[in-house]
Amino acid sequence: MTPLIAEFIGTALLVLLGNGVVANVLLNKTKGQNSGLIVIAFGWAMAVFIGVFSVAAISGAHLNPAVTIALAVAGKFAWNDVTGYIIAQMLGGMAGALVMWLMYRKHFESTEDSDLKLAVFCTGPAIRSLPGNLVSEIVATFVLVFAILSMVSPKMSLGAMDALPVALLVLGIGVSLGGTTGYAMSPARDLGPRIMHALLPISGKRNSDWGYAWVPVVGSITGAVLAALAHGIH
Amino acid sequence: MTPLIAEFIGTALLVLLGNGVVANVLLNKTKGQNSGLIVIAFGWAMAVFIGVFSVAAISGAHLNPAVTIALAVAGKFAWNDVTGYIIAQMLGGMAGALVMWLMYRKHFESTEDSDLKLAVFCTGPAIRSLPGNLVSEIVATFVLVFAILSMVSPKMSLGAMDALPVALLVLGIGVSLGGTTGYAMSPARDLGPRIMHALLPISGKRNSDWGYAWVPVVGSITGAVLAALAHGIH
Amino acid sequence: MTPLIAEFIGTALLVLLGNGVVANVLLNKTKGQNSGLIVIAFGWAMAVFIGVFSVAAISGAHLNPAVTIALAVAGKFAWNDVTGYIIAQMLGGMAGALVMWLMYRKHFESTEDSDLKLAVFCTGPAIRSLPGNLVSEIVATFVLVFAILSMVSPKMSLGAMDALPVALLVLGIGVSLGGTTGYAMSPARDLGPRIMHALLPISGKRNSDWGYAWVPVVGSITGAVLAALAHGIH
Amino acid sequence: MTPLIAEFIGTALLVLLGNGVVANVLLNKTKGQNSGLIVIAFGWAMAVFIGVFSVAAISGAHLNPAVTIALAVAGKFAWNDVTGYIIAQMLGGMAGALVMWLMYRKHFESTEDSDLKLAVFCTGPAIRSLPGNLVSEIVATFVLVFAILSMVSPKMSLGAMDALPVALLVLGIGVSLGGTTGYAMSPARDLGPRIMHALLPISGKRNSDWGYAWVPVVGSITGAVLAALAHGIH
Repeated sequence: MTPLIAEFIGTALLVLLGNGVVANVLLNKTKGQNSGLIVIAFGWAMAVFIGVFSVAAISGAHLNPAVTIALAVAGKFAWNDVTGYIIAQMLGGMAGALVMWLMYRKHFESTEDSDLKLAVFCTGPAIRSLPGNLVSEIVATFVLVFAILSMVSPKMSLGAMDALPVALLVLGIGVSLGGTTGYAMSPARDLGPRIMHALLPISGKRNSDWGYAWVPVVGSITGAVLAALAHGIH
Repeated sequence: MTPLIAEFIGTALLVLLGNGVVANVLLNKTKGQNSGLIVIAFGWAMAVFIGVFSVAAISGAHLNPAVTIALAVAGKFAWNDVTGYIIAQMLGGMAGALVMWLMYRKHFESTEDSDLKLAVFCTGPAIRSLPGNLVSEIVATFVLVFAILSMVSPKMSLGAMDALPVALLVLGIGVSLGGTTGYAMSPARDLGPRIMHALLPISGKRNSDWGYAWVPVVGSITGAVLAALAHGIH
Repeated sequence: MTPLIAEFIGTALLVLLGNGVVANVLLNKTKGQNSGLIVIAFGWAMAVFIGVFSVAAISGAHLNPAVTIALAVAGKFAWNDVTGYIIAQMLGGMAGALVMWLMYRKHFESTEDSDLKLAVFCTGPAIRSLPGNLVSEIVATFVLVFAILSMVSPKMSLGAMDALPVALLVLGIGVSLGGTTGYAMSPARDLGPRIMHALLPISGKRNSDWGYAWVPVVGSITGAVLAALAHGIH
Repeated sequence: MTPLIAEFIGTALLVLLGNGVVANVLLNKTKGQNSGLIVIAFGWAMAVFIGVFSVAAISGAHLNPAVTIALAVAGKFAWNDVTGYIIAQMLGGMAGALVMWLMYRKHFESTEDSDLKLAVFCTGPAIRSLPGNLVSEIVATFVLVFAILSMVSPKMSLGAMDALPVALLVLGIGVSLGGTTGYAMSPARDLGPRIMHALLPISGKRNSDWGYAWVPVVGSITGAVLAALAHGIH
């Protein structure tokens, strides 16, 4: 497995499982309908756990363009490899969302509410206010990347042993900082599935809320870069 | 303890605890009635944890015919030993379901709904659509086995130290990919207890839904073999 | 710290936290009222975690007469030390219940239902049927002790590193096998606090259900001894 | 990073995430509204996890004046450094509360109940009875610090490897001993955010309940010192 394939697979697993838990909680007639935030938060945390430990040995398991950029800013990843990693992650996020949709297709058909269908794929703000929403994504990603940099500071990248700490980090950010915008913190997790939402023939879908799409992208990259700079200062 | 006895005991523990948590959540008058998906998902995850760490040192803790076959396909388990392992696992799954029923017998008697009684033993689809249900089981088992193969890739089999990662994997798959068919992912977990449901004198039981019984069996083995092949390619 | 003091402190912590979570979920006006089985199961699991890792280095953290007896049967603990350990554990369980009551005193006063007040201290069956209840306690304790013996088989006793596996074991047993009788699995956890319930001037209390009191004691010791024998056979 | 900056950052992360989870559960229109105690307990536990592992290598991750004082009493921290640590922790707690408020500002505006707004920042008793509330805070902090001292007894301070045990400790204390006063257990976690509640222009806020403010401060320090003394005796 090459690092690029590893990033593709790891991100696909991450988004398949992460989108999957939202489908399970939000869509109609599933076994987990309305099972609440605790299920969603553990679902995304375990999605990260599984993605990271499955491929960390090969690619370092960034699985997120914001993380890749932050590691490059921090001098722990070659700028030459950044573009390839990001493309692999974006394609992985799209592939994961595709498989999720194939699995939950009947449940999409059974669900009336087109907002819920969009929410399975990508995040949206609880209260729409783009500057405030941007701040939320910046803060959440800052915490994510700052903590990851503390974790990898004695070495160059994440290993399989870091899968659990990173998962617990995402669990904590999810329940604590996810209340406002849904803690996207990654273009591959948010923009990738949003593109799939636009492309796929989902029954009764609404538009893909392109007016909001830039917020998780800009917010996550900004938060990640700020974290890398903050970690570099001291 | 021989490996075959270990597989029997480990699978019996797995199904006793896994079926047990479903009994606790679904049956009448239990202390956990209606406590929701988070309880079921943690219950199955801890069932795997306990099964794996109790016997991993002796048999490698497959505890699932689909895992055994996948490891054989991947060249990490001798084909000669496959049949014995599968028999031990199937008998273990049946034994675990039997003990669960003995424990929760009064609660089976207190429960009217015969669908719930069946659901304690084995899985059923949230929306019946056999091709789609088969896809769900294939995807869920693919993720399970692909991740397990990443975990064991530097060695030959699971050890006690792998119990927690495998349990977290099952937790994640449960909440994320279990919404459609209930993540059977194993003939020993699904067909074994289904046979016990047919055999035992459960008060007010319905038929054992044999029309669906092949889906988890074929789905889990297919998903596992595909994962072994996919892992072997790169 | 001597081993006996360690067993006293560890069991007191275990019961303080374990009884405490039940108080938080069952009593009136608490911050956790009606927060459900998932909270109770995690509460008892973390109670075990904290008790074990606080004293494991000194006493091996049995914290339960049934475990002590099973380890003696298995040849891993001197019979001469059994009586002292059990006395320390029983006194620890009583002390833990006392501190819990002091903390939650106002909430006991605010609660009408005398059954709930008893349930904070000790277990009772969901459906009263003493032979069946006894089977439940035997099965639950068998699983607990069998798994612990697998864990300690290469060594003589539990260490601080075993605190998390044992806690997860208790989490799993709680959600899966606790639905019938509430998984007492220990005289120190059940009889100790029950004695305190009888002795303390709890406002508006009922009798301490002595007709049931022997079930968790006999069941836990029987299950533990059977597990030790079963583990010794293979 | 100097130890003082580390204590500031670690405590800021702890309070940002800890206050954040309460905001998510209590405030109006969040994604986690009314998601219950299990979410709050995991949120605070992961807040501690993230705070500790992010800075443990540099400062030993006290993140709490009560812990700092207890370690000094136990002879594991220089009294000369106590004042600096406490100032850094208090400022960190205030900074964390500030960032939380910036993130959840729209949700504070959407929430009518001024008691809930205060509860996001700092603790309050479920039943007001200052002597009893003080006992609750003493007991909870005693357990916290006693267990931490067991953990660090072979060494001088916490390391990154202790982040998970300490987090699980806080999870257990939260669900078991948090039912009465909300387990403040730290002046930096309670008084720091309370000061921010008083200073910030929060829409529709009530007074900051200064009549209760001394309870978590005195209770946590008393409990911590008692734990240090108790641990030193044996």
